[in-house]
Amino acid sequence: MVALPIAFVEELSALLGDGWSASDADRSAHGTDNSRRTALPDAVAKPRTREQVQAIVRACAAHRVPIVARGSGTSSTGAALPTAGGVAVSFERMNRIVDIRAEDRIAIVEPGVLNGELQQALKPHGLFWPPDPASAELCTVGGNLACNAGGPHTVKYGATRDNVLGLSAITGTGDLIHCGSATTKNSTGYDLTHLLIGSEGTLGLIVEATLKLAPLPPHRASLRALYADVASAAAATARIMAQPNTPAMLEFMDSACIKLARDVGGADIPDAGALLMIEADGDAATLPHAVAVLAQAARGAGLLSLDTAPDEIASEKLWAARKALSPALRSIAPGKINEDVVVPVSRIPELVDGIQALAREFDLPIVAFGHAGNGNLHANILYDPDDAGQDARAQAALPRLFALTLELGGTLSGEHGIGLAKRDFMARAYDAPTLAAMRAVKAAFDPNGLLNPGKVLP
Amino acid sequence: MVALPIAFVEELSALLGDGWSASDADRSAHGTDNSRRTALPDAVAKPRTREQVQAIVRACAAHRVPIVARGSGTSSTGAALPTAGGVAVSFERMNRIVDIRAEDRIAIVEPGVLNGELQQALKPHGLFWPPDPASAELCTVGGNLACNAGGPHTVKYGATRDNVLGLSAITGTGDLIHCGSATTKNSTGYDLTHLLIGSEGTLGLIVEATLKLAPLPPHRASLRALYADVASAAAATARIMAQPNTPAMLEFMDSACIKLARDVGGADIPDAGALLMIEADGDAATLPHAVAVLAQAARGAGLLSLDTAPDEIASEKLWAARKALSPALRSIAPGKINEDVVVPVSRIPELVDGIQALAREFDLPIVAFGHAGNGNLHANILYDPDDAGQDARAQAALPRLFALTLELGGTLSGEHGIGLAKRDFMARAYDAPTLAAMRAVKAAFDPNGLLNPGKVLP
Ligand SMILES: Cc1cc2nc3c(=O)[nH]c(=O)nc-3n(C[C@H](O)[C@H](O)[C@H](O)COP(=O)(O)OP(=O)(O)OC[C@H]3O[C@@H](n4cnc5c(N)ncnc54)[C@H](O)[C@@H]3O)c2cc1C
Ligand SMILES: Cc1cc2nc3c(=O)[nH]c(=O)nc-3n(C[C@H](O)[C@H](O)[C@H](O)COP(=O)(O)OP(=O)(O)OC[C@H]3O[C@@H](n4cnc5c(N)ncnc54)[C@H](O)[C@@H]3O)c2cc1C
Repeated sequence: MVALPIAFVEELSALLGDGWSASDADRSAHGTDNSRRTALPDAVAKPRTREQVQAIVRACAAHRVPIVARGSGTSSTGAALPTAGGVAVSFERMNRIVDIRAEDRIAIVEPGVLNGELQQALKPHGLFWPPDPASAELCTVGGNLACNAGGPHTVKYGATRDNVLGLSAITGTGDLIHCGSATTKNSTGYDLTHLLIGSEGTLGLIVEATLKLAPLPPHRASLRALYADVASAAAATARIMAQPNTPAMLEFMDSACIKLARDVGGADIPDAGALLMIEADGDAATLPHAVAVLAQAARGAGLLSLDTAPDEIASEKLWAARKALSPALRSIAPGKINEDVVVPVSRIPELVDGIQALAREFDLPIVAFGHAGNGNLHANILYDPDDAGQDARAQAALPRLFALTLELGGTLSGEHGIGLAKRDFMARAYDAPTLAAMRAVKAAFDPNGLLNPGKVLP
Repeated sequence: MVALPIAFVEELSALLGDGWSASDADRSAHGTDNSRRTALPDAVAKPRTREQVQAIVRACAAHRVPIVARGSGTSSTGAALPTAGGVAVSFERMNRIVDIRAEDRIAIVEPGVLNGELQQALKPHGLFWPPDPASAELCTVGGNLACNAGGPHTVKYGATRDNVLGLSAITGTGDLIHCGSATTKNSTGYDLTHLLIGSEGTLGLIVEATLKLAPLPPHRASLRALYADVASAAAATARIMAQPNTPAMLEFMDSACIKLARDVGGADIPDAGALLMIEADGDAATLPHAVAVLAQAARGAGLLSLDTAPDEIASEKLWAARKALSPALRSIAPGKINEDVVVPVSRIPELVDGIQALAREFDLPIVAFGHAGNGNLHANILYDPDDAGQDARAQAALPRLFALTLELGGTLSGEHGIGLAKRDFMARAYDAPTLAAMRAVKAAFDPNGLLNPGKVLP
């Protein structure tokens, strides 16, 4: 914790009025995130304009005060925690949808807009913004940009980084920069837009974004395929991804998840080695064909059963097992470490086998489910943090999970980011020269190291 | 020109053997590009391995010798010209397709592979790599990466930057870095992959890339729509892009291009204010529906005629006008300045109107055609470089074209990049703080300023 200089506090409280607070309530509200750790900021700033953000950063730079951007605090990696104290800059008052230009398929938004709010506003235009984290109703577009958030539709529509055309941001020196353009092609200079996306508030504070939208498909249909083992489900995933009808979702559950969804979650589903939930979207005229093609690709050695739901209502039933899973996970163990590792699709069987081996070795349930089409699995280590033995085993299993992922040619995070939780594993994911290049980029944008210090880079 | 130090020459000729040359023939062959300017390197290096590239860069860094990466020299912006002398590093001997992993939809390649060669190798796997510049048979994947190349299929499948998962590169300090991963999702640290793409050899020399592939659609069909005016064609473009059946291509020609294609190129096409060529791709079962939906969207005020070609053979006839255009352009004027400006789709009519106004003001033919779905038009100023008056008028029209584009919310280049030709217009596209951020990134990767000096940044 740093004690904030008086001149600094006076400057910012004069600038921000009731948008400046050092109350315990405000500090607490901005001192935790979904990682369930705590680290309080010394003050909270709630700017209304980019000029105010710029003034805050300039004041922080002048007084060497750390700055942590904050959306809704749903990060599960501790990315939003002010571990070095300083000012938490909340974007809750910068939450305007500035413009929706349907004919250009773009929306211009302030960072504090909630993802779910944006989707509601886009619906009447027949458009949506593809990033669809499970937290969509809670989290901000700014947080999505900063973490490169994704979700089940990423397999067809891409993650956040694939769906942003331009950004305005304030760098660590207080400069306002404008990256990219409102066009879907751009070969004009360095691509700072994609660099800032996923940088978790360590390179700049995003004050506006130009988002790339997609037409909302009018219809959806679902398939549920059960397999004897993970290898069969992974082979089906590869077959599904090898043909041109890319599914709108392609979700995986391992046998432990299936059991949990049934025994704890109450879902009506038989035992199986693995499950794929597949969604097709499109026109009424072509959807049946897409379903047929996806069903054909889902069939093969090891398939136990294949159910199709031709419409949204029937789909609900098929998705019940997947929906039952998250509450079931929460109810069986007081703690879980949820890591969203990614491997090439062809390595999914080895990843799941390896996870099961770790579960046996460390004598803890570890279950895997997630976005099969991207090879992005959520590996959940279930344990009781108050049981010292379980806690130690869970913490010891984690580096082994990352080592396994990297051995398979994968990477640490597909959508949650690095934050604090995975920072010290970065040196396993990247070699020293690559980390040095990342550090040099950090120094270029934030020479004083004031933006979200201690995050991302080890 | 710098005289190369003797120790440096001895080191590199010992390292590279016949991969090192200072012959006039080799220097000339690496001293021009498609911009038709000339600037000779002092020597040419043809490494076979990344270790050799690294040794070259380290030697250049030690002796402060400039380095220009070179693919096939098809750049039209002068990006590949060694204007500061030094060493041209040709990737012609690093042209292996290292691996094609069909089940993961990825290919791993060295930079010297020709785009067309790669597509041939992917075909038996039912896959393709989306970037499809008209120069595909000539240009290298390394050049495509460095310029963020695109083509007509970009509207559906994205440009180069959208289709690369990871890179290995040698920075200006001779460090080998590995960015990204072989996975389709990645939220692990800073996105250096997309930053290096489009950096035109000024941040690093790319020595390997992991490319994201797409399934080759089995069938294609075309539509040709003629409109009374550009506004009608642009409105149709917006309608086409607003529905979920994104066309595989959506190409535009203005009335001057139509006239040229007919009167000079011999194409069988009536007069019209504008033309759209639309391609659909997909399964035999759904292609007719896609064509019907696209035809419906193409219909509207100002439509003069709509022809459809249900298969590849009939398509050839419809595309004849577009194909006749390029040779026709070459035959009517000895010189042309071809700029690939981009505007939001809704601003296409204002761009084309503005271009026609510039043509009248500067008394030179300026024709526009290109990738309507991305708002990326090729504006061609046709003139005789040996006629001093025409030359002066062409050069004077150019900044006005860029000013117009930027006023419409567009950007300087959609696919060709900046190079030398557009470098001095960068200060119009980006404000001073944004250019300063780009310069800081340049310094982070290339502190001695040896990589392709004088390109991209003003
Ligand atoms: C129940 C639940 C389900 C989830 N499901 C998913 C999922 O399916 N997919 C997924 O990807 N994630 C998921 N998450 C994680 C989380 O919701 C996302 O990472 C989200 O993008 C965070 O947004 P936020 O507004 O809460 O950001 P915060 O948690 O407040 O901040 C996250 C990071 O973004 C930075 N940041 C925020 N705003 C800005 C800005 N304007 N400029 C610069 N940096 C900024 C912060 O400094 C911090 O580093 C889930 C979380 C929960 C609690
Ligand atoms: C007839 C014709 C048609 C064209 N049509 C199109 C089109 O439709 N779309 C389009 O986008 N472009 C088009 N172009 C432009 C050009 O073909 C592309 O920019 C292409 O990507 C350049 O590739 P190259 O191998 O020729 O690269 P070069 O011209 O040799 O180099 C281009 C730039 O890339 C850098 N570079 C090359 N290799 C590397 C490497 N390994 N690492 C780092 N930097 C490297 C060079 O230093 C230089 O800055 C066309 C050109 C011609 C002549």
